Amino acid sequence: MRILGIDCGTERTGYGLIESDGQRHCLVDAGVIRSKTSDPLGMRLASIARELRRLLQAFTPDAVAVEEVFHSVNAKSALKLAHVRGVALMLASEAGLPVAEYSPLSVKMSVTGYGRAEKQQVQMMVRTLLSSDSREFESFDASDALAVAICHATHNTVLAATGDRA
Amino acid sequence: MRILGIDCGTERTGYGLIESDGQRHCLVDAGVIRSKTSDPLGMRLASIARELRRLLQAFTPDAVAVEEVFHSVNAKSALKLAHVRGVALMLASEAGLPVAEYSPLSVKMSVTGYGRAEKQQVQMMVRTLLSSDSREFESFDASDALAVAICHATHNTVLAATGDRA
Repeated sequence: MRILGIDCGTERTGYGLIESDGQRHCLVDAGVIRSKTSDPLGMRLASIARELRRLLQAFTPDAVAVEEVFHSVNAKSALKLAHVRGVALMLASEAGLPVAEYSPLSVKMSVTGYGRAEKQQVQMMVRTLLSSDSREFESFDASDALAVAICHATHNTVLAATGDRA
Repeated sequence: MRILGIDCGTERTGYGLIESDGQRHCLVDAGVIRSKTSDPLGMRLASIARELRRLLQAFTPDAVAVEEVFHSVNAKSALKLAHVRGVALMLASEAGLPVAEYSPLSVKMSVTGYGRAEKQQVQMMVRTLLSSDSREFESFDASDALAVAICHATHNTVLAATGDRA
């Protein structure tokens, strides 16, 4: 199955597309959607939406995976992020796709085996798992998005194996 | 000018359309967009988006007004609300409309003259200002949405009078 992972953010939204059978994952595409910090929030959300729609149409994924959002870290940032997340979830649903949500801990666990891994470790393991050691990801936003896609690929297989496919 | 006020919420999103010259306000339409609590968030956001798009197309407002969101009241609710708000801001921007944001205090002040007014007082004053005493609003969500639209009409006039029209 083809999975689109999205790492939401108002300044930079990372995306990562993988093709996976649950055990082997292949990199399809990854990158970062940037929006002008000087633009009003609505305009930034519209430009992020435009790019996400383009990705959904161009790559026709089977599912979308995003991280859960928590208020504990930085309440103001979490609120801004939730605006982008709302747009992403809405677009996925309009495209008829199931959306899976995972805690940051689950994502790190499934990629590095350690729930408190640093972004560098996540990026390194994403490269290894996707056999793309030579590829320079644009930023941590892209590798974080790939990590949540890999997390979904793994979980989806576990669920499928137990007969409770997402 | 015609203003669409939106009172965002995942369960109930209020909307209120008014026509205003800044001093006299007329009710155009008001109501509540409901979404099924049993549906996944993405699906609920998509159904809210569908209704908001319909309103934007049917009533062609000149501006959209929403309340600012704060994390202090209830962090979890604020996060959910921010998802809906993201969708609303994005749609307004896609429709090419300016979006004005006001604090709950500003909205209550401009409608009732008292920043800590209760919802009942807001609703009563909205009815009076719109000369729609006989009309039963569907809920506080609708009157709250009308209140933010009236707030924008008033502020916009003040700004216009000082040569700094929004």
